[in-house]
Amino acid sequence: MEVVPHRGIDDLVRAMGKTGFQGRRLSEAVEIITEMIIDDDVTVFMGYAGSLSVAGQWRIIKWFIENEYIDVLVPTGANISEDIVEAMGRSYYQLDGGDDSYLFKEGYNRYFDLCGVESDYFEMTSLIADFICDLVDAEGGEPCMSSREFLRRFGGFLDGRGIDCIVSAAYRHGVDIFCPAIVDSPYGDAILMAYGRGRRIRIDNAADYIEFMSLAERVKETGVIYIGGGVPKDFIQLFAVTPDLMYDRFEIPGRKGLKRKGVKETFYPHKYAVQITTDSPQWGGLSGATLEEGISWGKEAVGGRIVTVYCDATIALPIIAHAVAERLGS
Amino acid sequence: MEVVPHRGIDDLVRAMGKTGFQGRRLSEAVEIITEMIIDDDVTVFMGYAGSLSVAGQWRIIKWFIENEYIDVLVPTGANISEDIVEAMGRSYYQLDGGDDSYLFKEGYNRYFDLCGVESDYFEMTSLIADFICDLVDAEGGEPCMSSREFLRRFGGFLDGRGIDCIVSAAYRHGVDIFCPAIVDSPYGDAILMAYGRGRRIRIDNAADYIEFMSLAERVKETGVIYIGGGVPKDFIQLFAVTPDLMYDRFEIPGRKGLKRKGVKETFYPHKYAVQITTDSPQWGGLSGATLEEGISWGKEAVGGRIVTVYCDATIALPIIAHAVAERLGS
Amino acid sequence: MEVVPHRGIDDLVRAMGKTGFQGRRLSEAVEIITEMIIDDDVTVFMGYAGSLSVAGQWRIIKWFIENEYIDVLVPTGANISEDIVEAMGRSYYQLDGGDDSYLFKEGYNRYFDLCGVESDYFEMTSLIADFICDLVDAEGGEPCMSSREFLRRFGGFLDGRGIDCIVSAAYRHGVDIFCPAIVDSPYGDAILMAYGRGRRIRIDNAADYIEFMSLAERVKETGVIYIGGGVPKDFIQLFAVTPDLMYDRFEIPGRKGLKRKGVKETFYPHKYAVQITTDSPQWGGLSGATLEEGISWGKEAVGGRIVTVYCDATIALPIIAHAVAERLGS
Amino acid sequence: MEVVPHRGIDDLVRAMGKTGFQGRRLSEAVEIITEMIIDDDVTVFMGYAGSLSVAGQWRIIKWFIENEYIDVLVPTGANISEDIVEAMGRSYYQLDGGDDSYLFKEGYNRYFDLCGVESDYFEMTSLIADFICDLVDAEGGEPCMSSREFLRRFGGFLDGRGIDCIVSAAYRHGVDIFCPAIVDSPYGDAILMAYGRGRRIRIDNAADYIEFMSLAERVKETGVIYIGGGVPKDFIQLFAVTPDLMYDRFEIPGRKGLKRKGVKETFYPHKYAVQITTDSPQWGGLSGATLEEGISWGKEAVGGRIVTVYCDATIALPIIAHAVAERLGS
Repeated sequence: MEVVPHRGIDDLVRAMGKTGFQGRRLSEAVEIITEMIIDDDVTVFMGYAGSLSVAGQWRIIKWFIENEYIDVLVPTGANISEDIVEAMGRSYYQLDGGDDSYLFKEGYNRYFDLCGVESDYFEMTSLIADFICDLVDAEGGEPCMSSREFLRRFGGFLDGRGIDCIVSAAYRHGVDIFCPAIVDSPYGDAILMAYGRGRRIRIDNAADYIEFMSLAERVKETGVIYIGGGVPKDFIQLFAVTPDLMYDRFEIPGRKGLKRKGVKETFYPHKYAVQITTDSPQWGGLSGATLEEGISWGKEAVGGRIVTVYCDATIALPIIAHAVAERLGS
Repeated sequence: MEVVPHRGIDDLVRAMGKTGFQGRRLSEAVEIITEMIIDDDVTVFMGYAGSLSVAGQWRIIKWFIENEYIDVLVPTGANISEDIVEAMGRSYYQLDGGDDSYLFKEGYNRYFDLCGVESDYFEMTSLIADFICDLVDAEGGEPCMSSREFLRRFGGFLDGRGIDCIVSAAYRHGVDIFCPAIVDSPYGDAILMAYGRGRRIRIDNAADYIEFMSLAERVKETGVIYIGGGVPKDFIQLFAVTPDLMYDRFEIPGRKGLKRKGVKETFYPHKYAVQITTDSPQWGGLSGATLEEGISWGKEAVGGRIVTVYCDATIALPIIAHAVAERLGS
Repeated sequence: MEVVPHRGIDDLVRAMGKTGFQGRRLSEAVEIITEMIIDDDVTVFMGYAGSLSVAGQWRIIKWFIENEYIDVLVPTGANISEDIVEAMGRSYYQLDGGDDSYLFKEGYNRYFDLCGVESDYFEMTSLIADFICDLVDAEGGEPCMSSREFLRRFGGFLDGRGIDCIVSAAYRHGVDIFCPAIVDSPYGDAILMAYGRGRRIRIDNAADYIEFMSLAERVKETGVIYIGGGVPKDFIQLFAVTPDLMYDRFEIPGRKGLKRKGVKETFYPHKYAVQITTDSPQWGGLSGATLEEGISWGKEAVGGRIVTVYCDATIALPIIAHAVAERLGS
Repeated sequence: MEVVPHRGIDDLVRAMGKTGFQGRRLSEAVEIITEMIIDDDVTVFMGYAGSLSVAGQWRIIKWFIENEYIDVLVPTGANISEDIVEAMGRSYYQLDGGDDSYLFKEGYNRYFDLCGVESDYFEMTSLIADFICDLVDAEGGEPCMSSREFLRRFGGFLDGRGIDCIVSAAYRHGVDIFCPAIVDSPYGDAILMAYGRGRRIRIDNAADYIEFMSLAERVKETGVIYIGGGVPKDFIQLFAVTPDLMYDRFEIPGRKGLKRKGVKETFYPHKYAVQITTDSPQWGGLSGATLEEGISWGKEAVGGRIVTVYCDATIALPIIAHAVAERLGS
């Protein structure tokens, strides 16, 4: 690793690829993400957990969407609502230390070394509540839909108001967003506010699963990018394993998968998999589990292209995105 | 910290309380959990994430339920399905190393240093699918309910079949279980299987949130125990913040909360909070965030009794439970 | 893992051994440490890093010494000086938060959630300086010795003054202490103070290595216990690898080791190895490296009894010590 | 954080500085390191721990030396010997998995995902042994010196043989290297080999401390860069605290420091401090301790420019070096 003046970002990443430990892995992540994007047979799923939108990373996710590098996004509810605060023209602020009880009283919410203004948060929540009220009024009764359908419509609403965020970009580019625990976020609060105003919406978690697994019929092969772990990673991992269960004959029409000893199901492992995480394998949980562990489950392919980068995404993600951009000329 | 022969567990924990770092915090966790249990004004919520049921910790959760030390449980779907495998008489096995592609072919799924048999997993999934088919047949149409209601009924089903697990124990003891991303687990697969057999159930995520927040009307004060982070922690944290949104006048009938600058909502911080986690604050995410950060959000009380123990729950939880058992004579 | 009222500590540890993740490993650590202690052919080395004496763990190390469960100790300088503060009758104090610049002015030094009084620290340093002055005066000139020899003599000095700490206990029980970076601690400051008073001592790092490796002649097999990583772990690991280099014929007289392709040296891997650490393998460093990595170096035995427990030692060490005490009836 | 095609590295780092978490801190690290380099009053100390030379990072350290951006280096012994293997024309190799007992037999030593050839390691050790034999023969008797003096002479030896590594670059540029636990590395083995050939050298640890602290007389203000923790960090931290102890009147001639309650010593906190680490504060140890904790000890300045970046150095260090290079035009 020589220090070369005015080196490009991708050139630096390639040099890291000749070292070891996580620097080497960062370089492999760029390689594998580039490969999965240019592989025409591959549908790309991205999981997006952690408080990353607050830390400005949502614009990188939007860039993936706008370049149509990803096909399906599975975020936490926070990550697709806290970006709206900035898209509405408000800001998050950098903190140096600070007393949490003072911040509470003054109306600031802390995210490690950042803070947001509670009234901005409330305004964003109210915007979602307005949308829900409109939606319920338009549909009548107690409309019931998947989070995907709900977010597609919300994308249209946001787009119509000129709010340029993850959900509206996904709407414009036909990227499906599934958010399996959507109420665990400002979306839940907005549902509650709408309920207080007499509008009741139902978000059908089962429909999420059925619609998500039904994508399998349109998919040849899959690649996954996990930013963080949690529900987004777990949910996407399942895509490799369970979609055939819905046919009551354990096979996806038109696809060929792998069989295992003792069970009837078919398995369709992800061909490419990249994870950026700050968790560790030794705690036994899914968020820090190696992608190799996923091989035993049929979630990752034997001989597939997989890498886990142990690094804060606020460092790894900008580097990866810029290096991929250089490689793809985007 | 003297080594005293044949010391009791709680006596050791008390001695740790006089040291520092995480040993000291483990001792504080025992103290605070004991306090919140014996405080008659307090409703206790437990979040339960990580692959802990597979590692045998589910019997400790069941013990909390059976002693009625907790009132509400928010688990991941995995943690309230993978226990059923053992409750059905099957087992998980300890691994020493092992090749993941071999495990795949032979039908084993790896969880760090443990593995389960895929056909046992499938049998457990099928049991849930059978329940769903029965439920849909009994209700007719496409029944729509919260995960709480779904799990209450499933508890009755399991109890009727003599399967003694977390969900059936909660059923017997009237403990509500909310599982906001329930499909991200074998429950999703079971829904898919039932769908393949022509039965469609709807799990209303919005109902989860409304029912969960409505508990606020019956609650005086709250204590929380977080085993891991993720959706379970985040969801319970929100209980302190948002329930009044549903009244369209921003106040829970009969409760008095705190106000903040610039917003109309009322805040009802948790009086007691204990978290066991292996995540770290410096990554900015919720799972590793300090409970002090929660103070800025109005989620934890200024001057409340709070502690975070950074430790694998397979070590911390058994110690805490046994020490609490000694203190409460359970 | 059932909750059993008034269970003994070792009984709980045995139950953890039937679970997974770090709970299982803690149980294996107790097993392996017990085995290495009762194996008559085995010399036990303990590495002792981290700010653990300040957190009261030094009394557990002393207990290992006084029971003659370990034969050689390799600590950091801090861990065998900061215990002296307590042995002199002073204390460390528990902090709840606190402003570092205030602590500085008031004369307190912080160790995460503990603090010590700078004047106590200074008094302990002065005591070491007094010993050095006495030693130099008695020897004349600029005495030059290994840290082992220096600490053996200092143990006698402390014992004569009734100061009951790690170094004096090791003196009484014939346990050798090697401290390869001894000046990086209050010992360095004491050397500086003595130097200011006109007394110059020399601590020969090369003698440390030669004396340490010469132990190989009296040793049959080895077991190692690493509390933390750093120099103590690395130094003890080397015992397995390099002692034969000093004979210029690459074999320890009277011992039979393993040979490797392409080199003349002989390797004598540790038969038992236990590590308690909070570091992680993915950073590539020695402190978090798996003991399996040590197999490639000839430092741990193929088929040997090895385990790494990822846990704060302020939790793991007291549990391990009490469980071992129960098993050995000490 | 927008994705901007063909952005420069420093431009990306500046953009990270507007985000949060570790991305923001990486940017602050670049800022503070640049400031301390251009501040003429400041002597810069670098600590260098972890297995980083093996991972190719030694060329970045050499770049810091050759640009005279640092004045004093405190490495582990491994980091200034394992680079020599590459400087001698040998290589380290990247591993994908691999069986440690196979690697042992075949003569490879593993470093997480890299390996080295034992015979190359041995050759490097033999080279150091040759130097020691020459040195002892030239000096006669049992020469006794600090690690600094030993390494200065070894730098001349390497330079004479055209071996371009950290130690020879430091020799050429007058950068002092202190290695307080030098024998805990191939240097120890080399000392053992020379001893087997009848040559005895003494490395005086006390001289290290006295020479290191005597630098205080030539220093106005200090800046520190810690890559990893361990002895290198701890040793450099002490520079701020203890040098005046050697004057028996507790004040460095010509410098003005801070006083604390209850003690006579003077404190000279570091004005700038940057740490890159993968450890965490909650374990209480020095390697993961915040630099804020150092304020309580008088090691870091109140109001000083300090930042800790939690990131693998194989990612953080190349980025920092290239961004600093752009800012300084080097």
